[in-house]
Amino acid sequence: MSTLTRAPVLKPFTLALIQLGNIGANKAANLTHAREMIQKAVTNHGSNKKPDLVVLPECFNSPYGVTHFPEYAERIGYTPGKPYSPDNSESESVKMLSAAAKENQTWLIGGSIPERDPQDDKLYNTCTVYNPQGDLVAMHRKVHLFDIDIPGKITFKESETLTGGTTLNSFDTEFARIGLGICYDIRFPELAMIAARRGCQVLVYPGAFNLTTGPLHWELLQRGRGTVLAEASEKEEIVYADIDPKTLEETRSGIPVTTQRRFDVYGDVSKM
Amino acid sequence: MSTLTRAPVLKPFTLALIQLGNIGANKAANLTHAREMIQKAVTNHGSNKKPDLVVLPECFNSPYGVTHFPEYAERIGYTPGKPYSPDNSESESVKMLSAAAKENQTWLIGGSIPERDPQDDKLYNTCTVYNPQGDLVAMHRKVHLFDIDIPGKITFKESETLTGGTTLNSFDTEFARIGLGICYDIRFPELAMIAARRGCQVLVYPGAFNLTTGPLHWELLQRGRGTVLAEASEKEEIVYADIDPKTLEETRSGIPVTTQRRFDVYGDVSKM
Repeated sequence: MSTLTRAPVLKPFTLALIQLGNIGANKAANLTHAREMIQKAVTNHGSNKKPDLVVLPECFNSPYGVTHFPEYAERIGYTPGKPYSPDNSESESVKMLSAAAKENQTWLIGGSIPERDPQDDKLYNTCTVYNPQGDLVAMHRKVHLFDIDIPGKITFKESETLTGGTTLNSFDTEFARIGLGICYDIRFPELAMIAARRGCQVLVYPGAFNLTTGPLHWELLQRGRGTVLAEASEKEEIVYADIDPKTLEETRSGIPVTTQRRFDVYGDVSKM
Repeated sequence: MSTLTRAPVLKPFTLALIQLGNIGANKAANLTHAREMIQKAVTNHGSNKKPDLVVLPECFNSPYGVTHFPEYAERIGYTPGKPYSPDNSESESVKMLSAAAKENQTWLIGGSIPERDPQDDKLYNTCTVYNPQGDLVAMHRKVHLFDIDIPGKITFKESETLTGGTTLNSFDTEFARIGLGICYDIRFPELAMIAARRGCQVLVYPGAFNLTTGPLHWELLQRGRGTVLAEASEKEEIVYADIDPKTLEETRSGIPVTTQRRFDVYGDVSKM
């Protein structure tokens, strides 16, 4: 987790989640289309408010498959806390995302892309985040790789080509502290527990859940409590949601689990 | 958690959950009725299998209210691991539960009762567990007290008269290791995480959720994944479920989160 200072006060904001249609083999076309969709989310928001934060899905520039990751991987080379200029980046995806955030003046969570570490050449499934000036401000490498085997239904082993990240990550905007995870990370409660206890009011998990394990679990894993505000179909679509701090405040003061934990009985995973 | 030895291999078993109608002011009548319902669960199971484990709800011998707890509280005096004879107990509820387990030859989780500690006179919301011989084999004092305040809807403060327990508890049967929690305990993930990591294949939370915060959360809090097998209405009712180890094994081998945790990235709360 990159930030341990006092979290910003949660303010009302509007979120736009982009779901993309099938991702093709042509990376340049994928990038162009993602850029168009970001612009569409910000400009064609119809009766919704202009979004403050736009989110792309997992693996938006490459077909989702272990054999594709090495071919599509890009070097990012961002080190948290160190100056980084997307303009000089080797990564065409980073350049596009930075430009899209800047030209649309929006916070942007750039889903994820296959990343190649500049030092050790290992591959990661990596999310990058941009402020409305186009600066790359945070990065999250998927910590939990999607290795599952349900015979006759789905077998997938990300670890054949990818390495899992080793850090938990969040970033501060003027309206919230936002914690990051990618897809399968959502199955491991420690990420969310630690993020929340370190001040994150919002958690975003770009994902590409499959249709075997997805339908039974996807919604369930996201809902600790509360209702679903907006949901896309399986097609390309942009969904919007106005996030109201009042709901969070009322729920937390009504059912104050945050102050009722019994760390005298069990440990606090955020302090370990 | 009382057991740290190797957990029993999960075997198929049948669970009966008793939901009681309104609990009255007459404790003797509450006990008699609960005993009848335990017998009914075991003998009138109809097309269901004879249950191996019967569960009563939270606070089944007393009206649910902070002013009632001192009046209805009983001294149990059970110390885990030490010999204890329900026959000589001061607690009429413990005597009834022990007798009911023995006469019906069933494992019995006796919901919960207001308990007065024999040493310091403090009150607890306490679950006791009996084997088919009628021995009291485990106890759980509600760790997280139900203190909530939703103005105009519900205000409840168990801590006005109760004290929270300080231990996590489970017990072994011939078919499973079973972890215990009571009602509001379910909102705190550490209990379930620690129980599961210490070998519990089953978690039972006797509860008396209210109809304000209940409907939105009750089911959601119980379902980490999987489908609901049986559900009662709001009336007095017994529901049965056949628990099949195959489902657990297939789910765990298909989506092996238990072996994919990243304790190199975050701590293991079960080891703290």
